[in-house]
Amino acid sequence: MVFAATDVIRAKRDGQRLTDDQIDWVIDAYTRGEVAEEQMAALAMAVLLRGMSGQETARWTAAMVASGEVLDLSGVRRPTVDKHSTGGVGDKITLPLTPLVAACGAAVPQLSGRGLGHTGGTLDKLESIPGWRAELSMPEIRARLDDVGAVVCAATAGLAPADRKLYALRDVTGTVESVPLIAASIMSKKLAEGVRSLVLDVKCGSGAFMKDLDSARELATALVGIGTANGLRTSALITGMSTPLGRAVGNALEVAESVEVLRGGGPPDVAELVVALAREMLAHAGLSDVDPAEVLADGRAHETWCRMIAAQGGDPDAPLPTARHVEHVTAAESGVLARLDAMAVGLAAWRLGAGRARKEDRVDHAAGIVGLVEPGGRVEAGQPLLELHTDRPETLPAARAALDDAWTIAAEAPAPPPLILDRIT
Amino acid sequence: MVFAATDVIRAKRDGQRLTDDQIDWVIDAYTRGEVAEEQMAALAMAVLLRGMSGQETARWTAAMVASGEVLDLSGVRRPTVDKHSTGGVGDKITLPLTPLVAACGAAVPQLSGRGLGHTGGTLDKLESIPGWRAELSMPEIRARLDDVGAVVCAATAGLAPADRKLYALRDVTGTVESVPLIAASIMSKKLAEGVRSLVLDVKCGSGAFMKDLDSARELATALVGIGTANGLRTSALITGMSTPLGRAVGNALEVAESVEVLRGGGPPDVAELVVALAREMLAHAGLSDVDPAEVLADGRAHETWCRMIAAQGGDPDAPLPTARHVEHVTAAESGVLARLDAMAVGLAAWRLGAGRARKEDRVDHAAGIVGLVEPGGRVEAGQPLLELHTDRPETLPAARAALDDAWTIAAEAPAPPPLILDRIT
Repeated sequence: MVFAATDVIRAKRDGQRLTDDQIDWVIDAYTRGEVAEEQMAALAMAVLLRGMSGQETARWTAAMVASGEVLDLSGVRRPTVDKHSTGGVGDKITLPLTPLVAACGAAVPQLSGRGLGHTGGTLDKLESIPGWRAELSMPEIRARLDDVGAVVCAATAGLAPADRKLYALRDVTGTVESVPLIAASIMSKKLAEGVRSLVLDVKCGSGAFMKDLDSARELATALVGIGTANGLRTSALITGMSTPLGRAVGNALEVAESVEVLRGGGPPDVAELVVALAREMLAHAGLSDVDPAEVLADGRAHETWCRMIAAQGGDPDAPLPTARHVEHVTAAESGVLARLDAMAVGLAAWRLGAGRARKEDRVDHAAGIVGLVEPGGRVEAGQPLLELHTDRPETLPAARAALDDAWTIAAEAPAPPPLILDRIT
Repeated sequence: MVFAATDVIRAKRDGQRLTDDQIDWVIDAYTRGEVAEEQMAALAMAVLLRGMSGQETARWTAAMVASGEVLDLSGVRRPTVDKHSTGGVGDKITLPLTPLVAACGAAVPQLSGRGLGHTGGTLDKLESIPGWRAELSMPEIRARLDDVGAVVCAATAGLAPADRKLYALRDVTGTVESVPLIAASIMSKKLAEGVRSLVLDVKCGSGAFMKDLDSARELATALVGIGTANGLRTSALITGMSTPLGRAVGNALEVAESVEVLRGGGPPDVAELVVALAREMLAHAGLSDVDPAEVLADGRAHETWCRMIAAQGGDPDAPLPTARHVEHVTAAESGVLARLDAMAVGLAAWRLGAGRARKEDRVDHAAGIVGLVEPGGRVEAGQPLLELHTDRPETLPAARAALDDAWTIAAEAPAPPPLILDRIT
């Protein structure tokens, strides 16, 4: 069916539900350039202010999936399952999780983009490993899913082109902060990957896009609703992001920490979340009889990691890049580290070179921050709290400024909140 | 001051009032192309759904005026006053009103555009007079205001360019129906004309943009508020537009009817409204001691009309174009003409060729409709009700179809509503 763009815009503007036909038409016509950027901008603002029902959002997502190709994973012999995180500071979970779930018997295709903001994306992190390359062909992806069971690679341009176009438009038109549009954007990319099931890690707290539990629940519910409506087994964990995840923030630093976890060590919060997400994914994949904690502990996950990295040209044993300048930030007083703010640490790492300001920027793989005291831990005046890593010492003053109000040292610390705040199915 | 476009959009999106600096910047940057069309589209939708205060709307208008040149009428010796109508079916009021007010001693610059929709604009109507031309230079405009006191001509491209750009954008993005944006658009063009006072004729009813009295009052209040805030003496009459104004709808047909009025005859509703608006304008111009009814009756207004037309190359005595095909629409039953719908008559005239569908179309000067029975008048079955005029007989079936439900013949007619419904200052 064919509509006039202004009729679709006016319908949403006036608070009506869009029909399936209207949604299919407007997304397709926008992808083809028949609906102009300014028309989609007006529609996006109307959607932001008027909302979309679960049914509209699911259909909007399906239309964005239909705007491009969908990966054909039907020939893959293992059960396919994917994971998506809404992103946080120090969130390197994909790195240990993907080989762990693969070692348990599933196939995990992790098609990723590059990061924009305080730290690099998953591809930026892995590119700090000498030789590793992000670009794989479709036959290579399928072969890796069969033999290793794990692939982390760049998303091909053909997946959900409507989403890519709309995402760029929303960015410049003040229409990012719409839960239905955020959820549709995330899910269109995941549905285009052709997996059978999906686990979402919705971050909640100062270092996340969703600052409080209510809005995190709203997004998680929207995401799970879209997945379910489109035939995907989907569930979501809502997890805390007020404090950085683990100790390391920065590309190579996070790879190193991930390897620690894969060797059975690493920060307890990272290990806990990796195992929890793995259990969720394995349940969807029909593999709930496998215990991921055991597969992590006995070295099988680490062995799969090495194969996964090597299969994409990386040397898992090669030394990672290190920063030329490492400085400490010290505590001014004694007490207990009662608070360490995720967003402030993320911004400081970004100042040091770990993230991008613009798409064209390159990230500094060695830059970042390492926490030396865990929240709740005892500190003495003058004790180092954080390590700042950078190749460009001129960035250090700005990083220190970003950390100005990043922590609180008190007589006692509140009990830390649980890492996993809720589960949405 | 310089802002980020997304910050301005987000402020309005989230229901904040825009500051004067934000408004000045966004209109200027949009005019220069620094704020992109898609950004202004998102802002326009946010304005439509969130509204603008009177102060914001006045500043928005002033910023659109400042985007271009303002006519310098300071050298004109007569007091300047302008009139604007929001448009209706058979609304030829500008034609007799402009020379009438000029004959009373004021200077009336009527800078107009061409019509889009059911009938032509004022320029289209006057262009049915052989020889008359719409394009005047600025020195010509000033000279005509001094000698004749009346000029109806094409608006120069330099006036309020931001409005022209925004108007075209709103048309394709479903953001027309915003009272602040409608009011700002109208008033920016009027303020750029450099007059000292303005009378608005806000139409209300089936044949007008504003269908009911409440929305007409809302628009009139917004218009008067903008004018007053920008130092213009402004008032508005709200007048009925459920029935066509006068008997003639169509370009040459309306010129002929206007000349009847200028000769002291014509339909009573047209003459009544012309005199009422003239009184309002003369009061603003400090000429309230002049009685326009007298100036209309004694032929001075008609004499000024002839000079006004001749000064722009027109022959006021030349025969007007007439249509090659004239057909009657007859009453099917006897009774009283209880209703004659303005919008249906307007659409039928448009079908006959009196208006444009697209900007590039030319209007058929002779096409249109003449009412043969006034609402409230007695009709017999088989009696002609309307005359359809066209040069293209193939348009007649569509025009008849548009008139299908255009009138009601009843045993008795309700008392006609007053023509002037309210006055807003």
